[in-house]
Formats: sequence, C-alpha cells, structure tokens
Amino acid sequence: MSKQYKQDQTFRLEHDSIGTKEVPEHAYYGVQTLRAAENFSITGLTMHQEIVNSIAAIKKAAALTNYEVGRLDKKRTDAIVTACDEIISGKLHDQFIVDPIQGGAGTSLNMNANEVIANRAIELLGGTKGDYLLVNPNDHVNYGQSTNDVFPSCGRITSLKLMIKAQAELYRLYDAFIAKAEEFDGVIKMGRTQMQDAVPIRLGQEFRAYAAAIKRDIARFETAKDEMRSLNLGGTAIGTGLNADEQYLLRVVENIDKITGLNLTQASDLIDATQNLDGYVTVSGVTKSCAVNLSKISNDLRLMSSGPRTGFGEINLPPKQNGSSIMPGKVNPVIPEVVNQVAFNIIGNDITVTLAAEAGQLELNAFEPIIFYNLFQSIETITYAVRTLVDNCITGITANVERCQAMVENSVGIITAVSPHIGYQKAAEIAKEAISTDVSVRELLLREKLLTGEELDIILNPFSMTEPGISGAELLKN
Amino acid sequence: MSKQYKQDQTFRLEHDSIGTKEVPEHAYYGVQTLRAAENFSITGLTMHQEIVNSIAAIKKAAALTNYEVGRLDKKRTDAIVTACDEIISGKLHDQFIVDPIQGGAGTSLNMNANEVIANRAIELLGGTKGDYLLVNPNDHVNYGQSTNDVFPSCGRITSLKLMIKAQAELYRLYDAFIAKAEEFDGVIKMGRTQMQDAVPIRLGQEFRAYAAAIKRDIARFETAKDEMRSLNLGGTAIGTGLNADEQYLLRVVENIDKITGLNLTQASDLIDATQNLDGYVTVSGVTKSCAVNLSKISNDLRLMSSGPRTGFGEINLPPKQNGSSIMPGKVNPVIPEVVNQVAFNIIGNDITVTLAAEAGQLELNAFEPIIFYNLFQSIETITYAVRTLVDNCITGITANVERCQAMVENSVGIITAVSPHIGYQKAAEIAKEAISTDVSVRELLLREKLLTGEELDIILNPFSMTEPGISGAELLKN
Amino acid sequence: MSKQYKQDQTFRLEHDSIGTKEVPEHAYYGVQTLRAAENFSITGLTMHQEIVNSIAAIKKAAALTNYEVGRLDKKRTDAIVTACDEIISGKLHDQFIVDPIQGGAGTSLNMNANEVIANRAIELLGGTKGDYLLVNPNDHVNYGQSTNDVFPSCGRITSLKLMIKAQAELYRLYDAFIAKAEEFDGVIKMGRTQMQDAVPIRLGQEFRAYAAAIKRDIARFETAKDEMRSLNLGGTAIGTGLNADEQYLLRVVENIDKITGLNLTQASDLIDATQNLDGYVTVSGVTKSCAVNLSKISNDLRLMSSGPRTGFGEINLPPKQNGSSIMPGKVNPVIPEVVNQVAFNIIGNDITVTLAAEAGQLELNAFEPIIFYNLFQSIETITYAVRTLVDNCITGITANVERCQAMVENSVGIITAVSPHIGYQKAAEIAKEAISTDVSVRELLLREKLLTGEELDIILNPFSMTEPGISGAELLKN
Amino acid sequence: MSKQYKQDQTFRLEHDSIGTKEVPEHAYYGVQTLRAAENFSITGLTMHQEIVNSIAAIKKAAALTNYEVGRLDKKRTDAIVTACDEIISGKLHDQFIVDPIQGGAGTSLNMNANEVIANRAIELLGGTKGDYLLVNPNDHVNYGQSTNDVFPSCGRITSLKLMIKAQAELYRLYDAFIAKAEEFDGVIKMGRTQMQDAVPIRLGQEFRAYAAAIKRDIARFETAKDEMRSLNLGGTAIGTGLNADEQYLLRVVENIDKITGLNLTQASDLIDATQNLDGYVTVSGVTKSCAVNLSKISNDLRLMSSGPRTGFGEINLPPKQNGSSIMPGKVNPVIPEVVNQVAFNIIGNDITVTLAAEAGQLELNAFEPIIFYNLFQSIETITYAVRTLVDNCITGITANVERCQAMVENSVGIITAVSPHIGYQKAAEIAKEAISTDVSVRELLLREKLLTGEELDIILNPFSMTEPGISGAELLKN
Repeated sequence: MSKQYKQDQTFRLEHDSIGTKEVPEHAYYGVQTLRAAENFSITGLTMHQEIVNSIAAIKKAAALTNYEVGRLDKKRTDAIVTACDEIISGKLHDQFIVDPIQGGAGTSLNMNANEVIANRAIELLGGTKGDYLLVNPNDHVNYGQSTNDVFPSCGRITSLKLMIKAQAELYRLYDAFIAKAEEFDGVIKMGRTQMQDAVPIRLGQEFRAYAAAIKRDIARFETAKDEMRSLNLGGTAIGTGLNADEQYLLRVVENIDKITGLNLTQASDLIDATQNLDGYVTVSGVTKSCAVNLSKISNDLRLMSSGPRTGFGEINLPPKQNGSSIMPGKVNPVIPEVVNQVAFNIIGNDITVTLAAEAGQLELNAFEPIIFYNLFQSIETITYAVRTLVDNCITGITANVERCQAMVENSVGIITAVSPHIGYQKAAEIAKEAISTDVSVRELLLREKLLTGEELDIILNPFSMTEPGISGAELLKN
Repeated sequence: MSKQYKQDQTFRLEHDSIGTKEVPEHAYYGVQTLRAAENFSITGLTMHQEIVNSIAAIKKAAALTNYEVGRLDKKRTDAIVTACDEIISGKLHDQFIVDPIQGGAGTSLNMNANEVIANRAIELLGGTKGDYLLVNPNDHVNYGQSTNDVFPSCGRITSLKLMIKAQAELYRLYDAFIAKAEEFDGVIKMGRTQMQDAVPIRLGQEFRAYAAAIKRDIARFETAKDEMRSLNLGGTAIGTGLNADEQYLLRVVENIDKITGLNLTQASDLIDATQNLDGYVTVSGVTKSCAVNLSKISNDLRLMSSGPRTGFGEINLPPKQNGSSIMPGKVNPVIPEVVNQVAFNIIGNDITVTLAAEAGQLELNAFEPIIFYNLFQSIETITYAVRTLVDNCITGITANVERCQAMVENSVGIITAVSPHIGYQKAAEIAKEAISTDVSVRELLLREKLLTGEELDIILNPFSMTEPGISGAELLKN
Repeated sequence: MSKQYKQDQTFRLEHDSIGTKEVPEHAYYGVQTLRAAENFSITGLTMHQEIVNSIAAIKKAAALTNYEVGRLDKKRTDAIVTACDEIISGKLHDQFIVDPIQGGAGTSLNMNANEVIANRAIELLGGTKGDYLLVNPNDHVNYGQSTNDVFPSCGRITSLKLMIKAQAELYRLYDAFIAKAEEFDGVIKMGRTQMQDAVPIRLGQEFRAYAAAIKRDIARFETAKDEMRSLNLGGTAIGTGLNADEQYLLRVVENIDKITGLNLTQASDLIDATQNLDGYVTVSGVTKSCAVNLSKISNDLRLMSSGPRTGFGEINLPPKQNGSSIMPGKVNPVIPEVVNQVAFNIIGNDITVTLAAEAGQLELNAFEPIIFYNLFQSIETITYAVRTLVDNCITGITANVERCQAMVENSVGIITAVSPHIGYQKAAEIAKEAISTDVSVRELLLREKLLTGEELDIILNPFSMTEPGISGAELLKN
Repeated sequence: MSKQYKQDQTFRLEHDSIGTKEVPEHAYYGVQTLRAAENFSITGLTMHQEIVNSIAAIKKAAALTNYEVGRLDKKRTDAIVTACDEIISGKLHDQFIVDPIQGGAGTSLNMNANEVIANRAIELLGGTKGDYLLVNPNDHVNYGQSTNDVFPSCGRITSLKLMIKAQAELYRLYDAFIAKAEEFDGVIKMGRTQMQDAVPIRLGQEFRAYAAAIKRDIARFETAKDEMRSLNLGGTAIGTGLNADEQYLLRVVENIDKITGLNLTQASDLIDATQNLDGYVTVSGVTKSCAVNLSKISNDLRLMSSGPRTGFGEINLPPKQNGSSIMPGKVNPVIPEVVNQVAFNIIGNDITVTLAAEAGQLELNAFEPIIFYNLFQSIETITYAVRTLVDNCITGITANVERCQAMVENSVGIITAVSPHIGYQKAAEIAKEAISTDVSVRELLLREKLLTGEELDIILNPFSMTEPGISGAELLKN
C-alpha cells in the first residue's frame, strides 16, 4: 500500500494561500493536488478511474455551458474541452494521484482535476505548465462550480455507470439460472427446511426460484438508478447557486446529460441535494439486498454440492482449481466462496456508507469520499463476482439425478403428503416410527393398513408431490 | 426480563409427538406452545401485538377459504372465524406467550395461534379446552397451511400496517418542516460547510431542505410497500403447495386481501417467496435511509441550538424537561437526542435483519423471528420518534433572528460573492487578511480599492447571496 | 408495545423550571419523571431492572458518603438509604417508568430515581409525597452527583453484574462440551473443509474444539470486566468534580464498592471517564466474539444433525418440540436456531453500541441510554441462549456412530494419508479416478500396485489418521 | 481496478489435476496460480505485501524444520530458504498475482507462494522453471503443511506486524496530546454537555482526556496481540496434524518464532485453532474501539475549531490545503475529516470480519481472505490516519485563549457552582432569567442579594471551578 512519487530532478514553483511548493516539472497536477497527496497517504491507492472519467465529463459540460452563457471564451473552452476528452479517453489518469480516502469533501479530487485540466489546456494553447494566467484551475476550469456540486454529481454519474454494468451481469445470471431451471426440471429431489428433510421438490424449481430472486434485484437496481439521476450541479457551494451564472444553472445539467446519455436531471431542491446523501444509502442498500440473495444462493450451492461422498452430493460444481495443497484431488466450491466473501464485504461497506451519510452537518456532508470508495467497490465487486459465478460455476453445474431420486424415496418427509389422508397425529407417529426403526414410511403405512398400495402410488407420486394441491386429493371424500 | 407463568392449581394433560405435558386448565394455548415457551426464554417479552392480529387475520382467511372449497365444515369455520375476530379485536393476546426470539422459523407462533384459536373455537362450540376432536389445531385451524407460508405472510402484513403508520407520522413531519420553512424564509444566516463559515443561506431554506429529504423517505416507503404485498400463502411447506387444495391456493390470498384491505397479491414464484427474505432487507434499508436523514437533521438541530451562550445559538428548541440534575436551568436537546438514538438502533437492527436474511438455507429461512423482532421495532420506533420530534420539537422551534443576521455580517465567507469580481487568488488573500487582522472583508476591499462601496452594497446584498446567480452580475463586463 | 399509565383520580401538583404538572397522588415519581415519560414514548418498555438496582446502590453510596463528609444529616441519610435498600430488594420497580430509549444522557432515569427515593424517604420520615423540603430529589438525593457521573457508573455496575451471569452459563457450556468430547472420543467421522470431504477426525475432537473456543470467550469476558470496574463517580457534570465535596470524591467509590462487592475503582482521569464510552464498545465486542463462536457452533450442529435421511446425519439433537405444523414427525434444530438468532441480534446491537459511542461530543456522550439498552440485551440474551443450548441441546446430543464410520470408509479424502507415500500428483490422479469410477481409493491403490494391503492397513488406520504424524511414517525411508 | 497480465510471447506448459495450461515462460508462478487469478478477478488488486512476507517466512521455517527432522535434503532446503529470503527482502512480490478477495480458504495464495518459491529454488539449483522434479511446489515447498495451517498462521503473523506499527503511531499521538495538555493547561474555557453550555474546564484537561483514551487503546492492542501469537502451524488440513512429521509439529513454531521474533506459540488445540477465527474478531474489535475514540476526538476538534467567525472558534487547526474551489480563503478541518472517514471504514470492515468469522463451517473457515483484506486495511489505515493526525494536525493546534475566556464569563452555566450555596431550585430560576433577559448571572445574583460580590469572586473563580470540590466550600456552614 505504499505510494511512490516519481523522483524528478526538475521542479516548477507553485503557490497557493498556504504557501509555495515545488511541483515536478512534468506533472499536470499542481500545488493543491500535491498538498492533498501529502495530507492523505492512507490507502496507497488512487481514485477509481470511472470517477476520474466522470469528473472530466462534468468539467467539460461546465466549460461548454460557461461558453454558451458568455462566461468563458472560445479559446479556453476548446482547450478545456479537449483536455477533458483526453481524460475521458483514458489519458492522464496517472495524474490523478489523490487517495480515495481523503478529508475535505472531495476538494482534493476537484482541485486535482482542475489543475490537470488547466495544465493540459495550457499546453494545448502553447503555454507552459503552471502558467495559470492562460488557463486558471479555479477561475476558468472551475468557473461557476464548487467541489460541493461537482463532487456529488460526479459520484452520482459514476454510480449510474457502475450500476448499469452490474445489471448487465445480473441479467446474465438470471438467464443462466433459467437455463438450468429448464435443464433440471425433471430432477426430483428432497426439499429441506431448517436443514431437515421436508417434502420433494424439483431441482429445476430451485434454480427457478434463484432466478426469481435475481430478477427482483435487477428491478431494484432499476428503481435505485432514479435516486442517482438527480444532480445538484449549479448549486455551487451550498446549493443556493451563488456565483453560478443563472443561465449556467439552467443549462449545465442538460449539457452533462447530453455528454453522458444517462437521463440526468437537476434536483428540485439544490440545497437538499448538496447536503443529504441518503440516495447513496439507498443504492448501497439495494446492492446489499442483492448480495444477500447471492450469498444465500452460494450457500445453497455449497450445501448441495457438499461431498463428494459424505455430503449432500446432489449437484456438482465445475472444478476450477485444485482445492488443497495437502489433500490430493480435493476440489472446493471456490466460486461460491468468493461470492460469499464479496457479499460479506458489501454488507460491511453498507455500514460505512450509512455512517458517512449520517455524519453530514448543516450545508454539506464532507464524507462523500469514503462513501464513494465503499459504494463503488460494492457495486463493482458484485459485478465481477456475478461474472465469475456465471462463467465459472452456474453454467457448468451438473446434477446427480439418481442420488437425488434415491434420497426422496428413502425419506420420511413424504409422510406430509399422506397427512391429509390419515391425520397429522397419526402421520407423526408413523414418521417417528420410521425414523427409529429404519423402516420406510410406505411399508409402515401398508403394515398398519392405513392405506393400500394403490392409494400410496397415487399419493406418493414424486412429481405430483412437487406441484400444488393435495396429492391424491381424489381419494378424499371430504 | 424474567417471564412468569401463572401458578395454576389445575391442569389438563395434552400430548404431542414429544410426549405428554400439563397445561394450565384456563389456558387457551396448549402443549406445543408450552414447549416453545420453555425452550425459548430469551427476552422475557412476547410477540408484537400487531403480529398476533395479523396471524389471526390469516387464520380467518384460511378457514373461510377452506370452507369455500369444501375442506372445512360450516360449524368449525364459524367458530374459528369468531375466535380469530376476537383476537383481532384485542382479546386473548395474553395467550400468545412465545418469545419473539425463537427457533423454528415461527412454528412456535403458528402453533400458539393454532392452539389458542382451536381452544377458543372449541369453547364456542360448547366443548372443553383440549378436546381437539372438536376443533384440531393442526387438522382444522392449520388446514392447508404451513408455518412456512403463514409466518412469512404474517410478517409481510404486519410490515405493511406498521409502514402505513410510519408514513403518516412522516407526512406530519414534512408538513411541520414546510411550515417552519415558510416561517423562517426571511431569516438570513450563515451557511456552513465542514463546520466552517461558508456563504449565506436562509433558515427557511434549511428547513425546506429537510422537508425535501423527508419527502424522499415517504416515497421510498411507498415503493417498499410493494415488496411486502406479495404473499406466499398457499405455498405450504416449501412453496410447492403440497397439501393445499388447488382451489384454496387460488383463493386464499384474495380472502386475506379482503380482510386486511392491503392490496395483497400472491407471489408469482411461491418457492422463491418462501425461502428468500430480501424483501425485508429492502424494507429495513428504506427505514435505515429514513433514520439517516432524521439523525442528520437532529444533529443539525442540536448544532444550531447549541449554546445558549457559547454555541451557535441560531435557533431555540422548546424546553421539554430539566436538562441536568446538577446544572440548574440547563435545557438540553433531548428530543433530537432520542431521535439520534432511535436511528442508531435502526442501523444496528438493519444489520441483524441482513444477517438473518443471508442465513436462509435451501427451501426456507428459519430466521424470520429475529427479522420481525428487529424490523418491526425499527419501523415502530421511527414512528414514535418522529411523532415526538414533530410534537415536542419542530413545531416549537424559534429563531434568534438578530444573532443569525449579525453572524452573516461578521463573517469572512461572504468573500465568495466577491470572488467573481476580483478573482479567486486575490479574494483568498483578502479572506486570509480579514481573519488574521480581525478587520471586516468589506473594509479591506474598500481599503485596497478593489471595489467601491456602491458595488459592495450590490454584491453583498444578503438576500441575493442566498439565491442563484452571480451576486452583482450586472457589474461584470464579461 | 403500548404503555399505559394508571388512571388516577387524585393528583398532587408539582413544578419545575418548565412549569407545573399534575402527578398521580400515589406515585413516588414526580414531575420530572412524568415529563420524561411523555417526551419519550418510544418502545413501550421500561428500564432493565438491574439498572434500577444499580442506580439505587449508587444513590445509597452517595448518601452514606455525603453523611460521612458532613454534607447530609443522619435523618435524611437513613431515610434515603432505607428507600434505596427497598428498591434493591425489588420494591418500587414499577415506579421507574421512563423508556429505555430516552434523550438526555440518562437524566430522565436519574431524575426518576431521585424522585422515587426522595418521596419514599419523605414517607419514611412521616411526610407527604411531594413535600420536597423534607427530602429534596436534587439537593439531597442527588447531592454531590450529576447524571453524568451517576448514569455511566450505573451502566458499568450493571454490565459487571450481567457479565458475571453470562460467564456462569458459559462455564456450564464449557463443561457440557468437555463431557461430550469425552463421550464421543472414540467416534471416528469424516472431517470436512469447505463442506468437502477432507480427512478423518473424531467427533470428540470436534466437541473439544468447541470447548476451547468457549474457554477463550470466558477469558475475554474476564479481561473485559476490568474495562467496567473504573467509575467516574465524583466527577459530577463533566469530570472536573465541581460541586462534589473533595472528601466525597475520595470516598464515594470505596462506598459503592463495599455495597456491590464488584472490585470497583475510581477512574484516574474523570474527565475522560465521563465523556468516552469506548469501554462499552469493548464489552460489546467481546460479547460479539462470543456470539460468533456460538453461531458457528450452532451452524455445525445443524449441519451435522441434518437429515434424518437426506443430510449428514452424524448426530441427533434432542427433540424439543414439533418442528412443523404441516409435516408430521419433523423435528427441527430449534435450539441452535435460536442461538443463531441471538447471535445475529448481538452483532446488530454491537453496531448500535459503536455508533452511539462514536457520537459523543466534547464533555459528554448523551447516547448512553441506547448503549445500555442494546448492550444489556446482548449480554442477557447470550446468557439465556447459552442456558437453553446447554439444557435443551448439548447435553442430549447422541452420535450415529455407524454412519460416521461408514462415511469415513467410503470417502476419497483418506487419499491424503497416502500422499506422502506416493506423491501429491499421483495421489490426486487416484482421487480423481475414485470419484469418477466410484471405486474405492484402497481398491485403486491395490490395482495399480502402488501399495500393498498390509501397507494400506497401517496407513489408513482410522485412529492414526486423526492424530499428528505421517500415517505409516515407518514405511517411509526418507 | 483493472488487472493487466504481461503479454508474453513465450509460454511453458504446466498441468495439474484440472488440466494443462500455458504459463508465461518468465513467470515464477505456475498453473495453479494462473487458474486462481482467472477465477478471482474481483478487486484488481493483489495481496498485501506484508502477507507475502509472512508466508515466505512460514515457508522458510517449514523448510528448515523439515530439514531438521530429515524430511527434506540440504540442497533443496538451502534453495527454498534462499528463495524465501529474497521474497522477505522485497523481491518477487510482483509474482504474487492472486486477488485479495479469493475463494478457497487461501489455497490460491499458498499455491502462489509454493510455485514462486519452487521455481525460484529450481533456478537457484540451475534448473528451468517448471521442472518440478527438482523442487516441487507441493511435495517439497509445502511439505508437512496445508493451506489450512499456513494461511491462518500467515494472517496472525501479519496482524502482529501491523499492530506493532499501529501502536507506534498511537504512542506518538499520546505524546502529542500530552504535550498539548501541558501547553493548554492554563486555558479556561466552557465545558459543554449535549452541546449546551455546562461548567468551565481547561483546554489542557480536554487534551489530557484524549490522551487517556488513546492510552487505553494502546493497552487494548497490547492485550489483543496475545490473540494472534498462537499458531496452528503443524495442524495441517484440519488440525489433527495428519501428514506432518511428529517432530516437525513440535519444532516448526519455534522456528517461525526465531525468524520473526514475535513471541509466537503453538495453539494448545490445533483443531480449534484451524476452524475458529474469533481472534480476528477481537483484533478487529479493538481496532474499532480505537477508531471510535479517534472519531470522537476528530469530531471535537472540528467542533472546537468551527468558525472562524460563526462557530465555536476555540482552537485553530493548522491549515493544510485550500478548503474550497469556490470559497477563497476557506480552510477546512481536512485531517480530522479523513480520520473520521477511516473510522467509518473500520466500523464497516469490522462487520465484514464478523460475518466471515461467523460463516466458518465444521473443520475450516474458508473466508479468511476477506477477513485479512478488511482487517489489515483497518489496522493499516488507522496507522496512517493517526500519523497524519499527529503530524498535520495535533502538533500545530493553537488556542484562542481570549475567546475561550470570554465565553466562560458570558456563560450561564457557571450558575452550577452557585447552586450548592443557594439551592438548585433558586439557581434554576436565576439561570432562566439570565437567558431570557440577557443579564449576567453574577449581576442577577447581586441584584437579588443572594450572594455578595466577595462571595461570588470566590465561588466563580474560574480555575477553582475546573477542579474537584465545591467552589467556595468554605462559605458553606453545613
């Protein structure tokens, strides 16, 4: 986690309100970025590249809007826009050196962006880096903006982009589950509640239920995206819009919407939108709900594939790597395991997002950086976890059809289907006897002449036990 | 937290698969309830009364449906329905003795309900409690049902009822904020970001922002209610519907919907709906988002009312009780403080709900009891916390108008409005000098002849600084 | 959760700084308590009775100390002490009506205690309730104290009492595990890692490992008790000790120590001890560590007892209640399930405790009430969960010895013991072949003449595979 | 978060039980590592370098021990030891390519280490990478080991190293607080409880209280280190020690202790030590307690430095960077803010650690990778957060002595000191009047002739109000 700054031999001098500082001559960032990098050496990492892309898009939209409303000249506008486009295309990302965990409500990233864009624009205009009269990070690149409207908007745009990717993988997972539901529709197996033998089910029904859960998650993401579409851009420092040209305020969100194509709108209350981060709590919550479903499914997969000899042994997960450095031939459910861990991490991240959102004070929440760090990790890791789950696990699952069938026949749980025919109390006695004597339920029912073999054939038909209705309802007079 | 059972002198004997047990003669519950009470002596509390009402409503709907489809005779149906109605009207609640934290996926509550209803029905039919041939808890009251479709449905119905109450209080809070927003619309005060003087704002704008946040919460509850409307009733043990009459399965949800009026529907995948509890995670998440907003607002109220002499002193909360046993005359912000604590509790409860939802296995999640205990506490305590916030705090808030005004005039933050006129760099220098010399920003600007008095009157107009646009834009040539 | 106040017909008038209020004539509490009860109608519950006992003990110690240092006369001291003793013996608890979730840093409970004790003391002195000239809640009962040193001390004393009870149950659990470890020491079964067959283990070894984990938990509670022994009593409002007689400050902790016998000491920095609640975070953390162990063990018990026919089926948990309202004869692992749920609840509570502890500001943390509510619930529910785990589960567990044995013999995992003799690569091939062909490992090794039957008898000796060392080490030349 | 593998032109073929795979010819890792990297592309990051160092130390200790007990020849031992030493010295770290979030209980890292060490050892012995007959990753490097004893031990060693670093920074913070406590010992200021004016305190006392809290944290880390000293090395797959030479088992921990100097011991129950991860929960809990204290202190610093004009304005934090891109001259409390965020992250991480520890099953907890990822991030970020807190904040704090003094004199809270002289009730009335009339407490007391000027000089002596005792006790007859 150590961070290494290039050892340059030549420097330019830059100064700000705090004082003067040597900046590596080659660097596009400036004095303010450098201070931030020194103040916040926490994780050794840098900001998520999608955040960098998003802030560049915002800076581009701001420059274009300022130009449209007559606050920025054409020359500078063009240079700034070109610099932003370069960043969006993946260039200059190494100039974004601030730590994702940073104090200051995102000012460090905003300053980093302002400086990189300004210096690149200066270069494009033939100037020398640091010659801020040509293009000034604050007076030109940041014109009409504040960290407090730029950074939140940047987070929302980034969220949207990542959520769209997550949904795409979830759709693939849904499809994979549906495919397996169809493939396994004929596989009768024992259903279990509380880990105890219950009544029969079909393996395909289980996979269809997984698909149903994932479908809900996709829909929740869809709803949650609306929480992110509303930007406070134009609100400047505290949402009152001070120092943003009135026309700018009316047009900037339209411009960023054109650039991103994300259906962005301006918040109806900019003051609220600047200080309240409950939208991120909601998005994190939705991600967490999805993680809960994925983890539950992963637990099921690990249970059903437990064995190969001394576990449930109902399904086989595709072997993806040796499972043990000491136990030859052991293959472990590593893909579900990584999904579980991603889920645990997301549940923890959700707490962090919640705490940070709660800690806002008055006109601003200064803790967005940690929200972004955690939330974007959550959405992104769920995306990659789902991808590996689909590609390296679900699609390769096979069923041990015979073993599944044998367990149903051997089970006591089928007594449930008999219960409407002989009463709960009597059925319970038979079940108890079956377990203690190791005699089959069917045999005991016949012995006690409670039902005939023909009746039992109807009632205990495996397939009918997995479908709604009283099995053998036609035998009941009532 | 100890639980005390009445010391009865007379008992009736009841038996189940486990054995025989003395049940207090007066008791409507039976042997299975008694076992549960003994196994789970955890909190010393009993189930939420709204859960009891909900399960009675379900039992009523089930009985009516079974009657409609010819599985239950009229006499028993009538008796069961009457018993259920009595419970819904608040009677017999003391017969629900099982602990809210219980093993067994809710079987204990279901059995408790079955036994109480059966015994009351027996009584209504002229029988003696315990005479289960007359009305049997399992074969009649529970006919066509399983704990695994009854208990989840019971939880969803209860959630809906509690969410509706929560929304009602949130609407009152919204109205209270809007009223204050209007009352305080003329109060100019200093806005603060990161607890540092920023730029002016109006107190009314702050309260309007609070209203905006609460409005979002109300909307989120509205959306989340849909998560709860979908019942797995009819799915019986694992969602396959075994032992429920096919006609029953088609009609039971319609009946419970009629009884409750909650727009209930049957889940499209009953297997999924039986085993997956992500819907509760979502509802808990929404409650948590709301708690986050309430806690942030409470923090603001405590900050703004800090003092009376050595704090911010911008607003006064109505005094509700003596604040100190040792410091005479001290009045503390006790109402926001209790809201904070309710919020902390809800955030913790959300984790419990999440863990329990994640822990489901295969065809069932056995951990619904702890979900209900935590989720219903969350929704209900937020309801009561909001109620006391409205009645004992928000409506009585007054503003210290002069102090607010004086702080704006005394502040350095107004330099921001000047920045577009003299540039960020120069403005920063003036700000720095103002702070170190304790001379006002206005005075320094005049001294350095950067702007004239007339210009400053326009630029530093307090009201215009709280509205969008560049203050004094007309003075800029650009 | 509704709270009902007695409908009295007669009232006395009491007043405080806020105004005048009718107090039920029979009530020992007074106006301040009544305000608190009205302000905080959140949970419908009242404070934990052990908290009530603890605050009475503190009030007693304070009165005695004030008497010793000449600040309280004998008559009032005696009356106050008698009133406190009555409370400690269980009387007057119904007079403590404030909600456990309350704003105001515990002032409401402190006032409640002051008023109840004052009024009871007044009565003992022959006066009429409300005649506070005789004994004044603030000037006499609360003399030299502040909520801010009383309430935290009260919490620490309560923690200690509850932790001691928890330890007692954990010791019983430890003993129960050791007893089972001995009983099952000869039961060879398959060990599993990642739910996949690994290498043999003895059931007794598993239970011994559970005992080892619980032993650590007991030790952690022991260490954590020291966090609670240090009181800030005497620090008064903010820990500076203002208004406490200097001699009182030196003697009051000694007196409360004598009364409680809990080895209490005075904090070395009273200011720190008044404002920082990290000690509770630590105690909650220890409780959580214990919950994690209990939940993991419960999961194992549920796994190993899964079946009876289609699961692992290695052990049987004692049947404690019918497991299903629809599936006759089903017996579920309800006791481990309730332990799981208690654990989930404790993990959530820990978050609440953490948030509340973090939210302290300057000289005080006003959020102790929610900490107490959650922490004491955690410690107490773990106590009762462990009790039912011991009594209703562990002691009744039986092993399915033959099934355990058969699974070892049938397993592929025993190839691990062969690996040092034939190499990891070759062993992995044999394992793979065994699984795909369903031929036993032993048979394949013989077929390929990799080892002789005699050698395999030595290497695959079940017991030696469960003990340290290379099985058949004597056969290796190396 | 994208991960890039070098595009090699030449490959060697390696195979394992899963099949054959092209491995870049230059790579020291092999086929198993490559599979892991492909299966787990989750975070785009690689394992913490201290984990890599720790596993190399373990592999070295294992090789030396195997040599001592005659299981490994000198040539291979020397080569393996040299390879390990190179890694410990920082070389070959780029060959550790597996993702920190990985399924498989750490097998991927263990395999990665085995392969890198084997290939480097092969090279040292003059062989060609991939020629595993010379040195085999499993049969030689991993001899007598399992992932299941190596990986947990690796985690514990890494924890210890990181905790020691954290303690060092906490000691520096403690010293910094003590220095400020002394510097500010004469600064009288207003104490506040619940954000409301309470009674006077000295700024130095506040900083001394911070030091006291940090001292506790250091002590807790010291205790928690014992949780990490106990290794399960030698227990192999499930703690039974199968396949480890008995002599190896007795000596390996001693050897790793010699190499690391960390006072390591062997766990008394290796089975327990392999499957239970509660020790990590405890270490995480201690880190969290520390985070809670740091966050509370940071909140205080932000409150006390709020302003400069419209907040508390009691202290000044050293300006470290421009606070705003739009508000010139604004300097924000960025260092405390980053500490807050690190604390929020740690609280979230603690939940993840807890969930993962709870999810262990039977003989192993497969979720250690996510525990390590979160726990080590927690300990390391707290270390760096404390470092920047000391260097960039605490040491540079200055006090606004006059403002602090003025607020005390202006406050109403000093009425508390008068209360023992005139009674709580009367004092409360005076306080109320002072607030409503804006007349000073002193003036009102004089007006009402409750105390003389001389008496008030004694009672309201600011310094004596900050020390234990009744201010002006000598004036009381009682």
